[in-house]
Amino acid sequence: MRPALHALRQALSDADLFAYIIPRTDPHQSEYPAAYWDILPWATGFTGSAGTLVVTADYAGLWTDSRYFLQAETQLAGTGVELVRLLTPHTPEFMGWIREQAPAGARIGLDDRLISMARLREMEEAWPGLTVVPVDLVTDTWQERPALPLSPVVLHDISLAGVSCTDKLSQLRAGMQSRHLDYHLMVSLEDIAWTLNLRGDDVAYTPVFVGYLLVSATDACLYADPAKLPAPVCDYLSSHGVHTAPYESLTETLRTLPADTRLGLDPAKTSGWIRRQLPEHVQVTAVPQLSTALKARKNPTEIQHLRQAMRQDGVAWIRLLRWLEARVGQEPISEVQVAEQLEAYRLTMPGYCGPSFPMICGYLGNGAIVHYRAEPETAAQLQPEGLLLIDAGGQYTYGTTDMTRTLALGPVTRAMQEDFTRVLQGHIRLASLVFPQGTQGRQMDVLARQALWAAGLNYGHGTGHGVGAYLSVHEGPQSISSASQVALEPGMLTSNEPGLYRTGAYGIRIENLILCVPHLETEFGVFYAFETVSWCPIDRRLILPELLAPAEIAWLDAYHAQVRELLTPHLDAEEAAWLAAQTVPIT
Amino acid sequence: MRPALHALRQALSDADLFAYIIPRTDPHQSEYPAAYWDILPWATGFTGSAGTLVVTADYAGLWTDSRYFLQAETQLAGTGVELVRLLTPHTPEFMGWIREQAPAGARIGLDDRLISMARLREMEEAWPGLTVVPVDLVTDTWQERPALPLSPVVLHDISLAGVSCTDKLSQLRAGMQSRHLDYHLMVSLEDIAWTLNLRGDDVAYTPVFVGYLLVSATDACLYADPAKLPAPVCDYLSSHGVHTAPYESLTETLRTLPADTRLGLDPAKTSGWIRRQLPEHVQVTAVPQLSTALKARKNPTEIQHLRQAMRQDGVAWIRLLRWLEARVGQEPISEVQVAEQLEAYRLTMPGYCGPSFPMICGYLGNGAIVHYRAEPETAAQLQPEGLLLIDAGGQYTYGTTDMTRTLALGPVTRAMQEDFTRVLQGHIRLASLVFPQGTQGRQMDVLARQALWAAGLNYGHGTGHGVGAYLSVHEGPQSISSASQVALEPGMLTSNEPGLYRTGAYGIRIENLILCVPHLETEFGVFYAFETVSWCPIDRRLILPELLAPAEIAWLDAYHAQVRELLTPHLDAEEAAWLAAQTVPIT
Repeated sequence: MRPALHALRQALSDADLFAYIIPRTDPHQSEYPAAYWDILPWATGFTGSAGTLVVTADYAGLWTDSRYFLQAETQLAGTGVELVRLLTPHTPEFMGWIREQAPAGARIGLDDRLISMARLREMEEAWPGLTVVPVDLVTDTWQERPALPLSPVVLHDISLAGVSCTDKLSQLRAGMQSRHLDYHLMVSLEDIAWTLNLRGDDVAYTPVFVGYLLVSATDACLYADPAKLPAPVCDYLSSHGVHTAPYESLTETLRTLPADTRLGLDPAKTSGWIRRQLPEHVQVTAVPQLSTALKARKNPTEIQHLRQAMRQDGVAWIRLLRWLEARVGQEPISEVQVAEQLEAYRLTMPGYCGPSFPMICGYLGNGAIVHYRAEPETAAQLQPEGLLLIDAGGQYTYGTTDMTRTLALGPVTRAMQEDFTRVLQGHIRLASLVFPQGTQGRQMDVLARQALWAAGLNYGHGTGHGVGAYLSVHEGPQSISSASQVALEPGMLTSNEPGLYRTGAYGIRIENLILCVPHLETEFGVFYAFETVSWCPIDRRLILPELLAPAEIAWLDAYHAQVRELLTPHLDAEEAAWLAAQTVPIT
Repeated sequence: MRPALHALRQALSDADLFAYIIPRTDPHQSEYPAAYWDILPWATGFTGSAGTLVVTADYAGLWTDSRYFLQAETQLAGTGVELVRLLTPHTPEFMGWIREQAPAGARIGLDDRLISMARLREMEEAWPGLTVVPVDLVTDTWQERPALPLSPVVLHDISLAGVSCTDKLSQLRAGMQSRHLDYHLMVSLEDIAWTLNLRGDDVAYTPVFVGYLLVSATDACLYADPAKLPAPVCDYLSSHGVHTAPYESLTETLRTLPADTRLGLDPAKTSGWIRRQLPEHVQVTAVPQLSTALKARKNPTEIQHLRQAMRQDGVAWIRLLRWLEARVGQEPISEVQVAEQLEAYRLTMPGYCGPSFPMICGYLGNGAIVHYRAEPETAAQLQPEGLLLIDAGGQYTYGTTDMTRTLALGPVTRAMQEDFTRVLQGHIRLASLVFPQGTQGRQMDVLARQALWAAGLNYGHGTGHGVGAYLSVHEGPQSISSASQVALEPGMLTSNEPGLYRTGAYGIRIENLILCVPHLETEFGVFYAFETVSWCPIDRRLILPELLAPAEIAWLDAYHAQVRELLTPHLDAEEAAWLAAQTVPIT
């Protein structure tokens, strides 16, 4: 058994708890928590990006989703922690287990900084007769716990942000006023960074910093460790009417809010611990973080810069594809080397800060593992045959990218081509959609699947996620999936990534980012369209033109012509010639 | 001012009410209420199928949707009743008016037999400080109110129904048991008719009879006027374990339900009046009527017979189209005559019982009025030019039909053809969809609109409604619209009716019924498809083949070949020749 697990059980017993729950997040419900909050690797050895650990005196289970089944099986072997396979991703299925296993009157412990108010309420409703006990068993148990991050916060220049902090605060305050709020508490790190036009380096893949932001009609305060706020940042904040206070002092502020203060917060993002700091006399109103909808609609400056990021990223991809073409079959190359090589090309780009998520490079059957992550010890060696799936994104100071290409490394079967062409049809149908104002993601999702469904095929993930502007590569509120109720609006940047996964054989995904733009206005209303903004050839060796409708071929040829036109000025002569050959019209 | 309005105001004053509300429905939330419950024509002169009247001492407003704006303007002129145009169809916007206008403490009267429990609760929540008073001001005020209908109930033979009443009751009881219900109250007339395999003639367009059905684990009772239940029907019911009681005696039964009875009912269908009869000690559980989901999935016998109904109806349509072709431009023909002629052809069909809804026959601009109903005094005369829209359905003892065709009566413009071809593309794309188990109507709707949206066009109604088996032409729970959360399942019959309406110029709609059928099963799951079951040529003069994809042309040619194959055996030689010419392949 892992020592950490042993120590946790001792603490569990001392605290008279039936179970202790550890989710994988931070007090800001971040997708990538800072090392201080990344408890699961310490407790279990499991390093996947999603999971919930439940420990009792005689059981330990880690609930995670199908992306991580293989990884968790390996990493949990011999640890005494059982892998529990989630039936439905992103659902709290451990709650059912606790309801069934916990004896009446049992006490269930958790660190309520890591649990949202909304989830905490669900627990209380789902567990009649049990008591939820907010308690931190980790801090005293984890001897070598990393420190909270202290990376310095940096300015995100107005020339990149497009709208000043003062103007963003004004927009927020207008929203607060219309909702009759005295205060608005913002907890999401991306929202705080966006509002203040600041960036940080506290967590992996996303340029944010740990803090809270409390805004009132006349005041705003950033609660963050003073050690990470250089004087120029403090001066800058001050010039926009934002003062600063230590991270922990938010507690004191909340506890002393005047009677009848109307405080708006998002129960799905705000921790139960925050709720516990608030005096009874504060009137809490559930609202989405008011910055989220503003942030999702990129402004003209952000759009101008994200176009630059997409071009730079496209150039890095072109170089990677040529590198692969020259070497596969000639020398040993592993999946891990591909990732390293793309990173090497990106590092030559101005303003490049690192990947926006862990790169996925899956050869053959590995490509069918949706969130596969190659590790040096186990990475596959590429051969001159079959399919390679590469999904990679970068953080540039002027924009966040995310693109997937599936490549033929050599001979491919007609079945692979048919699968690829159907995925491509879905990609094109969504990219080509014109839609009236108010159309939601769940209405569009079918277009990306229609050609696959026709052959009894499908994929088990959503079709598109929102993408930030030098912020998180996974950003709400919009998405394109059968569940999304949010209407797509101009300025929203979303991925378009249908796929197909043949277990043990290969995976296919074609992903570009698409920007919602105004299109036309008629007596029937206002219509929007998508503009594709990611630039890299789609592997023509995998396309069966006879399966495509004329309009689909026209889209593909026009896309390739644009790739050529936009990237060629940034390529040398050999690269340009290569790209020209890759982007010859299908017709 | 209308005398009825005057009388209502007197009663309003006597009852000390601020306002009195009259919706257009019956105690069963029927789409077409019996004459006894059809209060709005008496009170206001308005005969549309949807509306809510609100009367106060100095105001009377009728809220209705855009389908009825023109008609209501005409019918309400000079009555003292103001037309209030609904911004969103089927929403209770009058509630906002009352909230704003009613003084604190005001009493709002309504006959709570006509208001669902769910709506009543909405009112109570939306109107703090107001009191909802259940009171019937109509019965004593409406001197010549029609009697409750007494049409005899008839058996719906097992050879048509496919499943016996006993078996249906068993299915219902299984559903009750899994929901821990002692009793299940069914109030929807279609559900009662379906469960008991009985039909009636109490309301227009739908072969139902007025009654309630209360089912327990061991017993079932039909509450209906004994005068409408002939002895053979009573014997039949008795043989299936169903006894009968007078309509009004339901009150007594509900009032004397034993303590802790668990009663399941649908708050969206069951009236507030029912709720008021129930003792406090009855445990009410909100459930959909358990028959509704069973009824929606047609059984093999129903499917076999509905195919017959579709063929018969197709033959009547063929005759109508030939009749039109021979006469338009030769002799005066009005929209009303078209309806009469179709009815005349249908009356020659065995088992025909009447239209399933008021036929829509709209020439030129009238075709753009979505629920247009031609009246003899105002009907347009057909000329040999432009577009005629005909939407008609029939009730056959073996099935319910609903079909729309848009015809070129002579020369048409290219713009009309482009519009028509886009509507046709939507129709074909939905008809051709293959989809995995669990796909909801709101995911599919886009396919019918995609080609229209591309040109900045749209239509303001849903794409498809469920259709009954010799029951209501509008049947839930499924539908194909941006709002429908119900998954389509095999056996569900739905319309497929995209359209386009150019105000003042013309309307286009192409409607067939589509049956959800199993299609294939793969490692990716179970997939369903639609089988089109309505048979009538689509006007080839309105189609621009160059706008269609090859797969769309293939669908059209295959459909026309099937129309020819299925209908020709039922036609004489001249009709068959005409049909052959109409169904020549586009290719």
